[in-house]
Amino acid sequence: MSVNRQIRLKSRPVGATTAANFDIVDGPMPAVVGAGVLRRTIYLSLDPYMRGRMSDAKSYAAPVNIGDVMVGHTVSQVIESSNPDFRAGDFVAGYDGWQQYAVSGGKELRKLDPHVVPISTALSVLGMPGITAYVGLMDIGKPQAGETVVVSAASGAVGSVVGQLAKVRGCRAVGIAGTEKKCRYVTDELGFDSCVNYKSGNLTAALKEACPNGVDVDFENVGGAVLSALLRLLNKGARVPLCGLISGYNATADEGGPNLRPLLVSRALIQGFIVSDHFDRFGAALAEMTPLVRSGRLKYREDIADGLEAAPDALIGLFEGRNFGKALVRVSPDPTR
Amino acid sequence: MSVNRQIRLKSRPVGATTAANFDIVDGPMPAVVGAGVLRRTIYLSLDPYMRGRMSDAKSYAAPVNIGDVMVGHTVSQVIESSNPDFRAGDFVAGYDGWQQYAVSGGKELRKLDPHVVPISTALSVLGMPGITAYVGLMDIGKPQAGETVVVSAASGAVGSVVGQLAKVRGCRAVGIAGTEKKCRYVTDELGFDSCVNYKSGNLTAALKEACPNGVDVDFENVGGAVLSALLRLLNKGARVPLCGLISGYNATADEGGPNLRPLLVSRALIQGFIVSDHFDRFGAALAEMTPLVRSGRLKYREDIADGLEAAPDALIGLFEGRNFGKALVRVSPDPTR
Repeated sequence: MSVNRQIRLKSRPVGATTAANFDIVDGPMPAVVGAGVLRRTIYLSLDPYMRGRMSDAKSYAAPVNIGDVMVGHTVSQVIESSNPDFRAGDFVAGYDGWQQYAVSGGKELRKLDPHVVPISTALSVLGMPGITAYVGLMDIGKPQAGETVVVSAASGAVGSVVGQLAKVRGCRAVGIAGTEKKCRYVTDELGFDSCVNYKSGNLTAALKEACPNGVDVDFENVGGAVLSALLRLLNKGARVPLCGLISGYNATADEGGPNLRPLLVSRALIQGFIVSDHFDRFGAALAEMTPLVRSGRLKYREDIADGLEAAPDALIGLFEGRNFGKALVRVSPDPTR
Repeated sequence: MSVNRQIRLKSRPVGATTAANFDIVDGPMPAVVGAGVLRRTIYLSLDPYMRGRMSDAKSYAAPVNIGDVMVGHTVSQVIESSNPDFRAGDFVAGYDGWQQYAVSGGKELRKLDPHVVPISTALSVLGMPGITAYVGLMDIGKPQAGETVVVSAASGAVGSVVGQLAKVRGCRAVGIAGTEKKCRYVTDELGFDSCVNYKSGNLTAALKEACPNGVDVDFENVGGAVLSALLRLLNKGARVPLCGLISGYNATADEGGPNLRPLLVSRALIQGFIVSDHFDRFGAALAEMTPLVRSGRLKYREDIADGLEAAPDALIGLFEGRNFGKALVRVSPDPTR
């Protein structure tokens, strides 16, 4: 406990992210100064938005500077605190980034109760990905019972919650994923009505078969050919919450997108959103989802890499669709498991 | 007055529409049977949506069948009526299509008072194009005073109304048009704050200069490169009422569209709409716009071709951007002028 291992951004990716874009550095241990909270990172969350932070293209958040520690949501345990709201041993959710230790005043930390739900869920189903699913589906998708809700990256941290919440609302839930194994998980474990493997056979025909009554909500995480095919299946007045376009994240030149004529035909809506605009909805989201997680109705899956040093490869795997479940890094042992 | 000249759809266009897609036919005069209204067409409206009706691709309305009279909005004068709501000499707006005479029960006709505004306005600023502008701008664009509203095809029947209504609402109005002459008309006659000629020089730079505070509403009529450039200028929470994609109407293969990443960055909304879904808003639209037209604050311009036989070439001209003002055909003399 004399060094604080960190992973810093060494260079901006050109096209695909590689290990060479990161630097592993042993920095000095941070110290508590004034009213501060020192904590040890247990879990680091890896998320698609990180590709945007590594780039300096215009986005909704400033990029990580070259030489800075990579950003990321974390679950940590307090080691030392001079802030009366926290004490040693507490578990907290924060945004400490790719490092073993962090210190701050503590205002941004949220205390976690390990007796209610596992602490790692604060990074997955009851964290940013789960709340993203809730806000996009409920506030933009506005699913009505009997409607068909489609979600891409359906086995992922956001998509898995979208489909399960759609079922809670009485909808037909159709997932899209990239392997047969993921598709089986989506239907057999998560309870979606159907799942289309976008890598096998005729995508349009498979989507039509999975959505015999058309598509009312397409919760879009991926973009590309899947989105183009889905737009043609939209029903009148359909809604497309646009959460991500991971298929284009590595694009170097300015690529095109889908033909928008289907939006005219179906009078449909595409709306981009960012979960951080909707802090006012976090309370409602957690109030509805926490009991569903506790009761086992809302399932989740984690894909945990061990050790901070594994983070670059795990992030690359996320962009390549190699992960199966919420991508996490166990930076130090989880004492609650 | 013994024949009823009609223009019928002879073949579906492959790519651009040509004169060979139409047939000029002299049919028999229609006769009043039962409670009917016989009228002579004075003005026929030519509109971009007609390209869709000539095609049998999936759209929001059924295509015109090969051999059928081309559809279209009309202003006519009643010749003979056995319907007590109409009498000979009355002026009416209807949907009689590309022909000199029509007869029907009259339920679908709207009586026009030539003393309030010119009867041709029922096809332009106070007809379907004007109401399209009103509904798309007010209900989807939701312009707020001080915001920037951009509209493509700005000298056209819809675009010219969009920009003028934006000015009425206290917005900065920026037009996009294809000739210097149209641009001068848009700024000097219609009172837009700026107009960009999309055919001259660097489109992105010109749009940036015309929209120093970004774009809050893009009323989209055209699509293509202009839309792609505009998406990158959207402010946070911007709205894009999607009214038409005329740049792609002649596409034979399935072309792509704009990269949608800017929608994520700006949390913006694109929403397709069709004016015919919004009949409930016609009253409000006409109530606000009729006095503006009478007082001269809401200006309009007509591009009138003479004689029914001129309709095919005038429609082709509309698709090529040759018209300057609302494209109309004077099928018979206007007795009010």
